[in-house]
This record gives sequence, structure tokens and C-alpha cells, in this order.
Amino acid sequence: MAQKAAAMGADLIVFAELALSGYPPRDFLEFDDFIDKCELSARQIADSCPNIALIVGSPVRNLSGKGKPLYNAALFINQSVIREFHKALLPNYDVFDEYRYFEPATTFDLLEFKGCKIAVTICEDLWNIGNDPLYRVNPMDELMPLAPDFMINIAASPFHYDQAESRREVLRQNVEKYKLPLIYVNHVGAQTELLFDGGSMAFSPNGKVHTSLNFFTEDFKIVELDQLLTDDIQIDNQNIPEKIERIHDALVMGIRNYFGKLGFRKAILGLSGGIDSAVTMVLAAKALGPDNVYGLLMPSQYSSGHSIDDALSLSRKLGSPSGTLPIGEMYDVFEDKLEPFFRGTDFDLTEENMQARIRGLLLMAMSNKYGYILLNTSNKSEAAVGYGTLYGDMNGGLSVIGDLYKTEVYELARFINRDDEIIPLNTILKPPSAELRPDQKDSDSLPDYEVLDQLLYQYIEKRKGPAELLKMGFDEILVKKVLRLVNTNEYKRYQTPPILRISPKAFGMGRRMPIVGRYLS
Amino acid sequence: MAQKAAAMGADLIVFAELALSGYPPRDFLEFDDFIDKCELSARQIADSCPNIALIVGSPVRNLSGKGKPLYNAALFINQSVIREFHKALLPNYDVFDEYRYFEPATTFDLLEFKGCKIAVTICEDLWNIGNDPLYRVNPMDELMPLAPDFMINIAASPFHYDQAESRREVLRQNVEKYKLPLIYVNHVGAQTELLFDGGSMAFSPNGKVHTSLNFFTEDFKIVELDQLLTDDIQIDNQNIPEKIERIHDALVMGIRNYFGKLGFRKAILGLSGGIDSAVTMVLAAKALGPDNVYGLLMPSQYSSGHSIDDALSLSRKLGSPSGTLPIGEMYDVFEDKLEPFFRGTDFDLTEENMQARIRGLLLMAMSNKYGYILLNTSNKSEAAVGYGTLYGDMNGGLSVIGDLYKTEVYELARFINRDDEIIPLNTILKPPSAELRPDQKDSDSLPDYEVLDQLLYQYIEKRKGPAELLKMGFDEILVKKVLRLVNTNEYKRYQTPPILRISPKAFGMGRRMPIVGRYLS
Repeated sequence: MAQKAAAMGADLIVFAELALSGYPPRDFLEFDDFIDKCELSARQIADSCPNIALIVGSPVRNLSGKGKPLYNAALFINQSVIREFHKALLPNYDVFDEYRYFEPATTFDLLEFKGCKIAVTICEDLWNIGNDPLYRVNPMDELMPLAPDFMINIAASPFHYDQAESRREVLRQNVEKYKLPLIYVNHVGAQTELLFDGGSMAFSPNGKVHTSLNFFTEDFKIVELDQLLTDDIQIDNQNIPEKIERIHDALVMGIRNYFGKLGFRKAILGLSGGIDSAVTMVLAAKALGPDNVYGLLMPSQYSSGHSIDDALSLSRKLGSPSGTLPIGEMYDVFEDKLEPFFRGTDFDLTEENMQARIRGLLLMAMSNKYGYILLNTSNKSEAAVGYGTLYGDMNGGLSVIGDLYKTEVYELARFINRDDEIIPLNTILKPPSAELRPDQKDSDSLPDYEVLDQLLYQYIEKRKGPAELLKMGFDEILVKKVLRLVNTNEYKRYQTPPILRISPKAFGMGRRMPIVGRYLS
Repeated sequence: MAQKAAAMGADLIVFAELALSGYPPRDFLEFDDFIDKCELSARQIADSCPNIALIVGSPVRNLSGKGKPLYNAALFINQSVIREFHKALLPNYDVFDEYRYFEPATTFDLLEFKGCKIAVTICEDLWNIGNDPLYRVNPMDELMPLAPDFMINIAASPFHYDQAESRREVLRQNVEKYKLPLIYVNHVGAQTELLFDGGSMAFSPNGKVHTSLNFFTEDFKIVELDQLLTDDIQIDNQNIPEKIERIHDALVMGIRNYFGKLGFRKAILGLSGGIDSAVTMVLAAKALGPDNVYGLLMPSQYSSGHSIDDALSLSRKLGSPSGTLPIGEMYDVFEDKLEPFFRGTDFDLTEENMQARIRGLLLMAMSNKYGYILLNTSNKSEAAVGYGTLYGDMNGGLSVIGDLYKTEVYELARFINRDDEIIPLNTILKPPSAELRPDQKDSDSLPDYEVLDQLLYQYIEKRKGPAELLKMGFDEILVKKVLRLVNTNEYKRYQTPPILRISPKAFGMGRRMPIVGRYLS
């Protein structure tokens, strides 16, 4: 990319935050050897790019002997010269752990290059601009007295469904406050659960977007600084797609990158005829190609005929391979062998879970034998209230729709079907059921998803407590029951696969709850 | 406790860090409702303790409108007066996430009470005393100009096998530097994986331990300040038990508290006749009582006769219930039903994993039916290199020995047997085997545990990279293979149960590694 840019006459090419190490490198940062490798890479880049300067993110050592051992740095690489600019505002909330590794910058300086003075900042450095500031310092306020000509910000700003608008707004506020052009470069690509959506931008000093880069795919554009400074109309609208389309694209990228970065090509999933496995299979087929997604039907005596038809019709429509393996005889032998242990007890959750676990075992056997990664098909509503079987349907290498509430899964299904009935209409229209006992419906043990999902959203995303929820009009008994379910099922979520994150508060690294806490349980 | 202390004539009673919320409260802290409840508790304590002052840890709100929304505070409660002392040094490494929630104190003041001036600090506030300081400020250096008479430090300092000595040494360095008496109060009890070992102490200004409290159980002692100041001999030696005994006691406490806090009484585990399940069962029997620990034997055609004998002999010796449930017919029906899918393939890891998963399914069925918590019996060596079956023997609500390398499991077994052969000698002496194929031994696929464990220790606990490991004399091919195994099995450890932490670097919340990282994989 640097060589391409040099050939096109660019003076400087800008890469994202911690581009040399990947973001987030997590505890790799605690290995001296890893930091050595980052330093070596920077040197190699310097040696191999004689015709262009670069800005690229990398961890660097804090040599002062005080504070955390590293800085999160933007390296300015110009032939043999390497200068460091350190991040001052270190996000340490939700999915972010930067203060675990990095010392914040406390001194500030501009980059001088080709007669320009450039304020180089890193991601969060520009986000302390609202009321209620989270940090006691504002890097740009420190840099303004030095009279910069423009701003460059390198970022690793992970996707959630509202982030593109918030991000553009925060950047615009900076441009308006400091009246300087801004070149903003964000990561693109998935790092397990974290999805980086790209959408890099250059702003004119009047706050208008001059140039924008792709969402969800790598991109490359040349920005002429003179044009940034002189064009005073909005040249580029940075079309942000609709929310549901963004979620769709983010999940497809998440699957594709997870498989690609691990060196796997093929996925398997249990295909039940229900909405969750259907949506997961469509996304996987888009990410990996339909040939590479295998749907395994594992009906029991409780499976309805239409479930099997719906499942087969989906895999035919996609052109994906499928197989059918009824679990009845396997279930029977377990029941028989456990009879001496279970004598005198009734059919209960145990037997429901056994069916789910037999299916989990079969899927993992196929995965082990043929090198498929098992895709988990749980949704966020189920995961929240523990409506799923640990070591059964909660299995998988990656959870695709685990950050979508059930009502959002339906919305995504309708989006997928917007031009063509890819997911059988019956899958969308029938009442959801786990089909683990006769005539079972989700609504037998759970409230209506319309109500449940709103309540869960307020509790999980908005951290509302019981009193606030009652004030919002939720039923008292329901609130108590649901909050208790969410909290007492933390032990299950502790053991679930990584979940592609599309909301501002996903289960996983960004939500850290006690397992034994008595609060609301 | 406060009323008991008041009746005994004490002026002040001191509780540990964040005692009102539990430590660590984790993301409960993000709920306004939770902070309200902590404030209410402090008020209730003030109202119900008219005859004694208290120091007790609690989260409190940061009302300045700048920075993180909370402080980690020591509340001084004296009738209707409540004063706050804020923590300045917020640990944010390993298992600690305090900067996720709390703003550090930047102003410092003494507590004046009954004519004394007291320097009140919180845990980490006293730990910045060595060379290479992690923080740029030292709270006691700020407080010394105000001429305190003595120090109180409230703490939540989690156990690992070297921590008691380090902690005593750090506290002694503070006493020696500031020449003041110190009253140090630490948490005791387990919070899922984190084990707090207590061992609170009072130091005379000469650096000697004057009074010490129990390890691993709650304790209560009165300290006379006059005596602290005047006695210049070491009155109390704070006998720290031997390392292996501490590990033993910590694990027993960890099991007992996990069950107690969740409201469960009974445990189940798979009993193989091997060392891991034997040690786990002994610890569980000590923690919960032998009647409450059920050992399930699930032999296959590959199980040796002595394995069954050893398992039964252990449960008889402990007086614990056990049952036997051979898995052969269940395995056969899976093999039969999968035959159309597996035709033409060889017996491989798939079939080994199927056996482990059938066992996992049976244990979970017993757990579901009778309300047992399943204890996981994996050790750290296995977990490190991925020598275990996800959704099989990696199942469980709690991992008991998952932070002990295999060689440490043997050491613990010998400690358990120090006076009596509780664990059958044959279990300790025979070569370890998973018994998942004919005549299998761990040594078929893994290096000798003596070598493997040393290598793992240097890589995991000491974060040594490949070059450093070679310099230490480890074999190059072995280093490459083992590091690759550790890193590529991160996906398995992501889904394992919480592990009782006894080392300075346990798998779990204190070790956060990328799943898709290419580094050393």
C-alpha cells in the first residue's frame, strides 16, 4: 500500500491504531518478545519504504522507568527517522482494557513534515469533547497553542449498530471546535468478537466530509491537503447504510474474518427449521460460500414435520449441503442406561437437555472428523435468560447472532428476504419452539419476545435497575423474574463461545459480571 | 461484629476494601441502583452502630462531573458522620480492572479521631514502594507532611501461593519507611475464581508483626494502639503455612464458598481412577462433606481394571457415594448412527472425544436431575496444551485444580496422603493416561510433565518468549510445538469453567489472549 501510494505521488500514508500488532493485541503486549517484533517491523517498514513517509500505530516501550511499561503510539516513519506520538486518553470500559498495558501521554508535541505542522492523535484522544468528560485532559487543547495546520487521528473504533453516526458526529465536533482539517483512519476487519467497520474520512475545516472510505472492506484513497483546505462544499456524503444492513454486513465480515484468520474454510451448524439457525446459515453462506456450509438436521420425536421441510427447503435454496440424523435411538439408549439412576423421577429439564446435548455431540463429531467450525445459533434473548443448554445448543466456535435479540433476528430475516424468499416464510411466521417436549412453545416459559426484548435491552444495554424499570411501565413480577434469570445464568454465559458484537453492550469481554453475586438474583 | 467490638470496648472496627459491595463487584458497579444500595447500607450501618466508629470499604459516587463516575472508598462511619477516603492507585493488571470503574484520588487528607491522626489508604496505595514504580504518585508520601500517628490499610488482596510473603514484605517496607504502626485488614473468602486468604496484621512501628489474624477463615481481634506503639518485640510471628498446605486450604475454601454462595450443597464428578479426579474428590469431600460428593465411574472398553478398583477404593476410603455406568453401548449407538457420515474414515480424535462427551453428557444429566454442581477435574498442563475435550471432560461449574500443573497435582496428592493413604498409591504411581484408545499414555502425545510444566511455567507465569526459552536450555522443537499448542488452544480455554486461582497467572480473567492472533501460533 505504501509503495502504491508513493507511486501515485503521495507524501504520507496513514494506517490505523496499533496496525503493527493488530487491535486489540491483549496480553501479547506482556511479552517482551512481542514488543521486539513490533519494533523490528517498524524498522523493516522504514527500510522498505524510502519514497514515502508513514504514520502507523504500534505499541512502544515506556523507557522512563515510571508507570506502565508501554505506550500506545502513532509512529511517524520517514526513511531512517522514527518519531513517536503517544495516546493520552486510554479507554478502559466495555470491551476496552488499554490502561491494563499503556501509560497515558502527559506531554504533547506536533509533527512537522514538509512545512506542515500536524496534530497527531489516537482514537479516544478526540472523544473527550462532550459535557461530563471522562478524562481530565483534552489532547487537542494542549496542542492548539502550538498552531497545528491539520489533524490526523488513527483509530481502532469497533462497530456497533449506532457507532458510525456517533463517530462522525464526534469527529465533526472536533473539526468545528478546532477549525482544522481532519484525516481520520479507522481499522477494518474482525478480531474474533470485535468488528471494525472502517469508514475512514477526511473533513474540511468547515466540518464537511470531503472524502470517505468503504465500510467493512479495505479501501485506499488519496487526499489532497490543498483541496481539503479550499473546497468548502460537502463533496462526499459518507452514505451510512441502514442499521439492519450494517448489522448484516458486519456479521458476514465477522464470520469471514474469523474463519480466514484461523485458516478454516468450512462451517457446520444444526439446522432445526427455526429462525435462528436459518439466519445463521444464510449469513455463513454469504461469508464462506454456500458449498462450505453444512446443515445437519437432527430431528427427534418432538420435531414437527414442517420443521424438517423448512430446514431442507432453506439448504436447497442456498445450495448448501445438508444431512439428516435422527436422534431417537441415541436418546433411547441414554434413557435406558440412566434408568437405574433416574428411577421414580419425572421427565424434566434433564431429558430436554439430553436431547440438546446429543445434538451437540453429533455436531462436534462432524466438526472433529471433517474440520468444520461449529457455528453457534443462540440469540441474545435466550443467552440472557438462560434458555439454552450448556454443552448442547450453546456449543460452537463462534456465536453469529448471539448479540441480536430474538426480535432483531426476525428483523434480519425480513431484511434477508427483502427481494426473494430465501428463508422459508413458514420459518418466520410460526411461533418459536425448542421442540424438546410435546407441543412446546417458547411462550410456555418465557414472556412474549416483544416485551422481553425491551426489558432486556433496558437492563443490559441501559443498565436500568428494578425501580427505573417499574417507572418505565414494566410489570413488577416480570422485572423481578427476568432480572433474576439474567443474573443467575451468568455461569452459563461464562462458558459460551465468542459472540460477534453488534450492540453497544454485548455478552462477552465487554460485560463482566460476577457469577456468585447476590445482587438481583 | 461491630456490636461485639463495641461491647469489648473498641473505639473503631475496620473492615476490608469494598466490603459493602463484595470484591470484585465488577459491572454491578455500572448500575446506579447498585450504588444506591451501597449508600443505603452505609446509612443503615451508621444508624445501627451508635457506640463504635467503623471503617468499611464501599464504592461511592464521583460528584465532580469529571473523570470516572465512582471512587473506591474507605468510609469512616461515626454515628451520623460519614467521611470518604479515596483510593489513589487503581490496579489494572492481571485479575484487576479497577480503572474500568474508578477515578483515582488526587487529593489526600488524614482522618482525625479521638485525638489521633490516621492515614487511611486502600490496598494498592501501599504497593508502589519498590523501584520501577507502576504509578507516578505515592499516597503515603503525600500524607506524611500532615504528620499521621498511624496507618490503616484496607485491602482485597487475592491469594496466590507466594502472596502471603510478598504482602508481609511490602507492608513491612511501608512501616520501615514511614516509621508508623500499621493496621492492615484483608478480605477472606472466595469470589468464584478469586480466593482471598485473610491474614490481616498489625505492625509495630519497628516493622515487627504485633498481631495477626487467621488465614482462610474469618477472624476478629482487638488491637490496643498503645501496645502497638510501645511493645518493641515481635509478639506474633504470623506463621505462614507451607506453600502446598496453603494451596490445599485455598482450594477447599474456594469450593466451599462457591457452593455456599450459590446455595448448592452437592457436587458430582467423573471418577476415572486417575490422579486429577482423585485429588479433586478429596478436596470436595473436605469442603462439602464426603456425603455430598458423588463419584460417577464411566468405564469404557479402554479403561483398565485397576482404574475402576482405584476409583472405588478412593470413594470407599472417603465414605462418599459412587455409581458405575459403563459407556460402551452408548458409544456403539453413536458409532452406528454416524457410520453413514464417517464411512471410510479411521478411528481418530473424533472417536476419543466422543467418549469424553458421552461422559460429559451423563454427568450433566445427573447434575440436572439431582442438583449437583459438576466439578471439573482438568489440570493446568492439559488446559495449556489443549489436551482435553471441549464439552466433554472440560465440562463443569467450577474447575478445582485447573491452576495446578500436573506435577503440582502430584505434589498435592502426596500432601493429602502425608499421614494416611487416602488416594490409592497406585493412582499416584501409575503413568497418566486418558484411556481413550488401547494402551494410551499421556506421554504418547505430550512431553514428560517434568519438562512440559517447567516450560509452561516460564511461558505462562513468566511471559518468556521463544528466544529466552532457548537460552534457558529448552529444546527448540519442543518450544515451538508447545507455544503453538498453548496459543492455538485459546479457543478451548475461552469456554472452560472458572478456575480457582492459586498462581500468579491463572487461566481466566487474569490472562486475556486473542483467539485469532497469529503470534507464536
